[in-house]
Amino acid sequence: MAFEKVKRSDNYSEWYNNLVKNADLAEHADVKGCMVIKPYGYAIWEKMQAQLDKMFKQTGHVNAYFPLLIPKSFFEKEEKNAEGFAKECAVVTHYRLKVDDNRKIIVDPEAKLEEELIIRPTSEAIIWNTYKGWIQSYRDLPLLINQWANVMRWEMRTRLFLRTSEFLWQEGHTAHSTAEEALVETKQMLDVYAEFAENFLAVPVMKGVKTENERFAGAVETYCIEGLMQDGKALQMGTSHFLGQNFAKAFDVKFQSKEGKLEYVWATSWGVSTRLMGALVMAHSDDEGLVLPPKLAPIQVVIVPIYRSDEEFEKVSAAANAIKKQLEALDISVKFDNRDTHKPGYKFAEWELKGVPLRIGIGPRDIENGTVELARRDTKEKSVVAIDGIDSHVKNLLNDIQEAIYSRALKFRDDSIHEVNTWDEFVDVINNKGGFVSAHWDGTGETEEKIKELTKATIRCIPLNNKAESGTCVLSGNPSTQRVLFAKAY
Amino acid sequence: MAFEKVKRSDNYSEWYNNLVKNADLAEHADVKGCMVIKPYGYAIWEKMQAQLDKMFKQTGHVNAYFPLLIPKSFFEKEEKNAEGFAKECAVVTHYRLKVDDNRKIIVDPEAKLEEELIIRPTSEAIIWNTYKGWIQSYRDLPLLINQWANVMRWEMRTRLFLRTSEFLWQEGHTAHSTAEEALVETKQMLDVYAEFAENFLAVPVMKGVKTENERFAGAVETYCIEGLMQDGKALQMGTSHFLGQNFAKAFDVKFQSKEGKLEYVWATSWGVSTRLMGALVMAHSDDEGLVLPPKLAPIQVVIVPIYRSDEEFEKVSAAANAIKKQLEALDISVKFDNRDTHKPGYKFAEWELKGVPLRIGIGPRDIENGTVELARRDTKEKSVVAIDGIDSHVKNLLNDIQEAIYSRALKFRDDSIHEVNTWDEFVDVINNKGGFVSAHWDGTGETEEKIKELTKATIRCIPLNNKAESGTCVLSGNPSTQRVLFAKAY
Repeated sequence: MAFEKVKRSDNYSEWYNNLVKNADLAEHADVKGCMVIKPYGYAIWEKMQAQLDKMFKQTGHVNAYFPLLIPKSFFEKEEKNAEGFAKECAVVTHYRLKVDDNRKIIVDPEAKLEEELIIRPTSEAIIWNTYKGWIQSYRDLPLLINQWANVMRWEMRTRLFLRTSEFLWQEGHTAHSTAEEALVETKQMLDVYAEFAENFLAVPVMKGVKTENERFAGAVETYCIEGLMQDGKALQMGTSHFLGQNFAKAFDVKFQSKEGKLEYVWATSWGVSTRLMGALVMAHSDDEGLVLPPKLAPIQVVIVPIYRSDEEFEKVSAAANAIKKQLEALDISVKFDNRDTHKPGYKFAEWELKGVPLRIGIGPRDIENGTVELARRDTKEKSVVAIDGIDSHVKNLLNDIQEAIYSRALKFRDDSIHEVNTWDEFVDVINNKGGFVSAHWDGTGETEEKIKELTKATIRCIPLNNKAESGTCVLSGNPSTQRVLFAKAY
Repeated sequence: MAFEKVKRSDNYSEWYNNLVKNADLAEHADVKGCMVIKPYGYAIWEKMQAQLDKMFKQTGHVNAYFPLLIPKSFFEKEEKNAEGFAKECAVVTHYRLKVDDNRKIIVDPEAKLEEELIIRPTSEAIIWNTYKGWIQSYRDLPLLINQWANVMRWEMRTRLFLRTSEFLWQEGHTAHSTAEEALVETKQMLDVYAEFAENFLAVPVMKGVKTENERFAGAVETYCIEGLMQDGKALQMGTSHFLGQNFAKAFDVKFQSKEGKLEYVWATSWGVSTRLMGALVMAHSDDEGLVLPPKLAPIQVVIVPIYRSDEEFEKVSAAANAIKKQLEALDISVKFDNRDTHKPGYKFAEWELKGVPLRIGIGPRDIENGTVELARRDTKEKSVVAIDGIDSHVKNLLNDIQEAIYSRALKFRDDSIHEVNTWDEFVDVINNKGGFVSAHWDGTGETEEKIKELTKATIRCIPLNNKAESGTCVLSGNPSTQRVLFAKAY
């Protein structure tokens, strides 16, 4: 493969960009800020979608679809949401093109919209405007609805998957008759995200609450999961918002309670996006390429034949196809790479780049011995195993790989949480070690801002099961009741 | 259910609008021309998606994602495509909003784009611009890629599912090294669509070729499937285009052939959309509501308990839950409607409205007799069957219903094809009988246009396995070599 290799340890950012491109995950489009998700990248996203969708349905949610375009005036209704999102947005102002006298296509000046339309940066406004028509009584509640959609937030500095103008995501929007029920929903979905991150992406996450500064615009409380990437930077991987009655009030959505009173509806919203693709790449991959957890790998096992003659190829192919069939019977996705255009060494490197968790090499001597060579992508360990019983062996090995990738990430994350008690220590750890810094904070937005200015570190979250501990703020020296997690973040 | 009923025979159009709304499929959004697809409607669309996606993958296609926004200049590259699509489009001209002195949100005049961006009405332009970077040699071909996406074509007069500004669809875009291979692909996907329409939607379709007037802008040949709705109007349900080298030339996409020559790439594109939801409703439903073919019904069987006391309810529930479990073991989706807020009669009507193919009624006397009452949605036939063996009975019955719905639609369609040989006959049939009119046509766009002006009938297609037959054009009297299918259409 003819492309320049940049080592992860030399330039993490360039290593990431190259990897996303070389492993055929995505590329920048010829449209400013937008990306093309290539088939191999999209296949991973489809696996994420399928699993998340299943988990959403298991927790009682249904899917629906709301419009892409939102009238500008809708944004004005929820004040904080307006402040937060009425910023860098794509604005539709005209609805017609025409061909001018020079056969050039121009925007028809006659076709100006009375009210501009915004491409959704998030859908609370359009959805709560719709819910108004759907909710009259407590019998109509709860509404547990999710949407898979594209959204757009105009970005000047973009990174594939991590920050692009258009991205794909899901957004849940639920409506409830009580605050308690909405809070249970908010936390339930946070748990769903954490479970997905840990058991499928194999990325351990901190569950926590955001500070007021970092809260979603329009939320009463924002819960989040935060992962740690291999360069020691944190990545917000998902958020779940308790919206209180803010949107119900903004869009006048009331219901008649069991007791016959008219009350405002309680709301939540929650989302994860193609950003998770970035998390997947950054948490596990190495200098050889992607390392994919088996549960999300489009190809879990690749079989590479080793042969010198047509006759050998035929023999090896027969054995390979038999193994493929056995594995597929156990729902393992297998590719038999029988291309005659490339040598085994090239194929090995290519499938390592693409992160296939397990490689089976098989040649004439293997067949004589009734064995094959297995090579794990994560540890690069090789082993020779009997063809007899290969199916259950591979099945177990894939489970082991899934767990090993998680354990490695967990150890790295746990080793990267540093308790600090002085400002000097704080600055030293943030600048030299990276990772999460667990420190006392006085609870004010001013101190939070100052720390961000001085070190670029932000409060990632107040961990959910934080222990009470009195101390003094690492910057201001004012009293504090608990530690919070700081980190530099994407 | 408190809504006005309009009979299908009295006002087909109003009947359709009411049904889409009352069965909770979709509604008009507060955004001009756009729709909200409600959870029940979306659940049907998801079943369509899942099946189509499976069929696309079985024929070797993979999914990917391309940007929503297309630079205006891309449209100019393929001349016919530009003429066809650079019309009623949503145009993004600005990328920022701001809050003015009166705390109103306004479009920031400073944030004007240098080049306007168009929300994709279809993606040939952006995709072929991307393919240019992916294709160098014959080894890179074929590219067999599909995208599930939202698209937008500004519409003034809208109908839910049939014609809305934004709609959901899939668009396949393939690249090939020879014209033959691209043609095989074009026809293969037409066959996939026809199979899906007939075996899943239970709508028989005519496969054919469009005339030049009706061809996709930029295609060399457009193939289509045409269904017939119950009011005798035709509906184009899917198209598959052979694009020749038009887009390769427009975007300069060449490949090195095996022989070492630089050649332009051959292309196809093909798509079906949420319009199929409209086809499903219009082809089968009746005055009581939706009639859903079992293969696309989100709920295939509903169990309605009949009881007078809590004790009876408990007994009936136990039996109902046992039946539900048995049916689910056969992958049948079952809802046990145990709401205590509504009487059985109300529930019967509600599930008829929602088109659930089979209803099981079960009361205390049934349990004594070891039987239940089955009611088919399509024919409204009722039967009493033994609980013992209910699972396989229901399984078979669902298959029968699927076939019966198709057979009924097929008979209607076949009875609605009228061969006519004179202009008077043509006008009479088009105006009074509806359906397809099979007539001779002289092959000119002028005659086609004139017929459209005079009768609103268009040539739906030249059927694929048309028999050669010499005759004279029904309007001009000029010689003709085959009959084509005319109809009024949606």
